[in-house]
Amino acid sequence: MAMHALFLNCTLKRSPEQSNTQALIDKVARLMRELGVETETLRVVDHDVRFGVTSDEGDGDGWPGILSKIKSAEILVIGTPIWFGVRGSVSQMVIERLDGTYKESDPETGRFPLYNKVAGCIVTGNEDGAHDVAATTLFNLTHLGCVIPPNVDCYWVGDAGPGPSYLDAGGDRHLYTNRTARYLAHNLTAMAQTMQDRPLTTNLKALDAEAAEVSD
Amino acid sequence: MAMHALFLNCTLKRSPEQSNTQALIDKVARLMRELGVETETLRVVDHDVRFGVTSDEGDGDGWPGILSKIKSAEILVIGTPIWFGVRGSVSQMVIERLDGTYKESDPETGRFPLYNKVAGCIVTGNEDGAHDVAATTLFNLTHLGCVIPPNVDCYWVGDAGPGPSYLDAGGDRHLYTNRTARYLAHNLTAMAQTMQDRPLTTNLKALDAEAAEVSD
Amino acid sequence: MAMHALFLNCTLKRSPEQSNTQALIDKVARLMRELGVETETLRVVDHDVRFGVTSDEGDGDGWPGILSKIKSAEILVIGTPIWFGVRGSVSQMVIERLDGTYKESDPETGRFPLYNKVAGCIVTGNEDGAHDVAATTLFNLTHLGCVIPPNVDCYWVGDAGPGPSYLDAGGDRHLYTNRTARYLAHNLTAMAQTMQDRPLTTNLKALDAEAAEVSD
Amino acid sequence: MAMHALFLNCTLKRSPEQSNTQALIDKVARLMRELGVETETLRVVDHDVRFGVTSDEGDGDGWPGILSKIKSAEILVIGTPIWFGVRGSVSQMVIERLDGTYKESDPETGRFPLYNKVAGCIVTGNEDGAHDVAATTLFNLTHLGCVIPPNVDCYWVGDAGPGPSYLDAGGDRHLYTNRTARYLAHNLTAMAQTMQDRPLTTNLKALDAEAAEVSD
Repeated sequence: MAMHALFLNCTLKRSPEQSNTQALIDKVARLMRELGVETETLRVVDHDVRFGVTSDEGDGDGWPGILSKIKSAEILVIGTPIWFGVRGSVSQMVIERLDGTYKESDPETGRFPLYNKVAGCIVTGNEDGAHDVAATTLFNLTHLGCVIPPNVDCYWVGDAGPGPSYLDAGGDRHLYTNRTARYLAHNLTAMAQTMQDRPLTTNLKALDAEAAEVSD
Repeated sequence: MAMHALFLNCTLKRSPEQSNTQALIDKVARLMRELGVETETLRVVDHDVRFGVTSDEGDGDGWPGILSKIKSAEILVIGTPIWFGVRGSVSQMVIERLDGTYKESDPETGRFPLYNKVAGCIVTGNEDGAHDVAATTLFNLTHLGCVIPPNVDCYWVGDAGPGPSYLDAGGDRHLYTNRTARYLAHNLTAMAQTMQDRPLTTNLKALDAEAAEVSD
Repeated sequence: MAMHALFLNCTLKRSPEQSNTQALIDKVARLMRELGVETETLRVVDHDVRFGVTSDEGDGDGWPGILSKIKSAEILVIGTPIWFGVRGSVSQMVIERLDGTYKESDPETGRFPLYNKVAGCIVTGNEDGAHDVAATTLFNLTHLGCVIPPNVDCYWVGDAGPGPSYLDAGGDRHLYTNRTARYLAHNLTAMAQTMQDRPLTTNLKALDAEAAEVSD
Repeated sequence: MAMHALFLNCTLKRSPEQSNTQALIDKVARLMRELGVETETLRVVDHDVRFGVTSDEGDGDGWPGILSKIKSAEILVIGTPIWFGVRGSVSQMVIERLDGTYKESDPETGRFPLYNKVAGCIVTGNEDGAHDVAATTLFNLTHLGCVIPPNVDCYWVGDAGPGPSYLDAGGDRHLYTNRTARYLAHNLTAMAQTMQDRPLTTNLKALDAEAAEVSD
């Protein structure tokens, strides 16, 4: 069975403005398709997503459509620019909206909808902050149920201070970024296959009950 | 085959001073033994580990002995206090020392010694900072080769501002901490078994070569 | 001359929904008025602010009106909830929009519009992350030109894990939060007076020229 | 009266090993001397500082000598390398040791020994993490009593991924770093003069008492 990877481009810029993050996403998506993965990319800011922490904020909220695609994918990749040293507001908003999935846990096992999905992170910025962005984002995704394989952050930044972005700076030919793009594509794909064959079957509800017995 | 879990207690306090982090580690280790895992805990500050970024800083350095145990374990858990909102200096030192393992990669595949190990994080503090500590630590461990399953951070903090620590505050009976202790124990154990049966076989060296062809 | 403090409430919730962050802002604002400061609070999400990094994204963007108030105030306080261990998306959006002020620097001195303003941070959440939120936010504000006096972060969080928020948990009576609310109010007010009397007069343009002489 | 600036070099490497952070510290110190500031630099790792959170861990602990110099200086600059995206373990240890100063507050006013000092941060690394390092460090210093003027972080990092360090990469001629070195030197010096003339006189003890009346 083909794996499906969903890339969420969390640029601040609406289409058709050029997005550096999209350029790096496109590269990674191409690599994953070569590995037999079916890929789709959404530019979140084009979809009128509302601020909030539920799965549907109503009134034409664009989130439910995106969430539905997240649930169908085995692989989730958050692509985001860095702003002021941390992840941009759109990726923060996406993570906040995923808070709603905690309330959609399986009634028997307590597992959240993102359990057993495999996640990675793509980051572009012109100077600094990629480690913070990836660390925060991948950690948040483990809380939501995702598995994080090794080396699934791929980033490009220029040297200290403001400067040209990925596309203008020729980031497309930056060796480290091209190496980690491959690590990410291969490890996400292999791990997604593993999690299909051997999903975690932890019963969180049973563990909650056990914990309640020894707690206040 | 039994899984082996190594817990590194990164408290700032030498034995025999009481360590709150140790108390939470002990709880988690007990849970993992009930799942059939063999556990060992080391208190790093008792072992004269030197500052540095190699695998042996010489002159009686205590790190090589610890690193050897890390390499033998299938499961690695970093236990650390929070200081000033971030991870304590001893856990930072431990991560820095693991930098040396990048230079010990497999000559054929380029994979680092920590590849296919499964890692988690235990955090205690009296007020705030657990998310930052766990995010940074788990992310660093993915760079080094570890797999991070969902819900493998277990922490206890009190409410805003200074106050009593885990043991004095009765943290032992805090429901959330007891729930996440169980999630961590179960998910690390199950995932470690999976990675033994289905290790990632990514050839990083081959991918490096491929990346070099398309880069500057 | 009276000092003016502008509080930006960066809750995700539109009026008239109850905002915990607003409750803590109200307390601090009251303390500052007792010190003779004139205060105003804006709830950002009510103002249709657009994603972006300029001072006016056009088409009815609500940011220019807010920015104008920021420029008139001597004291700027960002109030924000924590989501997933870091600052909420609305406060991240606010900081991103302030990027536009870099381009409005004084033609003679190169100083940005926020130079010599004094800034603080108010944070509410139900579990953890206040240090990360305040550190990131106050640091970003120093880049933009603000002065940060000691002890100008005031926060409330509950203990580990999800739980009741500031209002429901009786956070209003939490000693540490009430102490730091006072430190913040007093230090922002005193420092704002100092910066009015003794503004920094650094000529950034002259320093840029000097740096260019010794650089590539 | 001359201002005194103390630079703490928090490299992991003992003398006489070459320190990139030292090279950038030397540049900034030279700029400050040109502004009439007396400067001193200490390499912390040469002084046998112990892990801990008190002002004297006994038994030959090197910290009391360093703390004494911190107390005599009007300006404190933390210089540190980045390791794994965050500040190195030695700078973390320095901040932890400053925890002891909270217990040395003025008996009348409750102000901590670092109140009214002015602080900045110098960061070197070969890839990424400078924003996180500076944000965490400057924020911690505001808790301890320091004032943070605008633009007092000066950093150098290379582009994405491992690579040559400051000295080998010719970082000495990097424009952005040379600009921010000047901003830092000028703003720290001017602000230190201001804080000498117009120190904050907040009575923290009186505010604590006031807070206690309205709290649990």
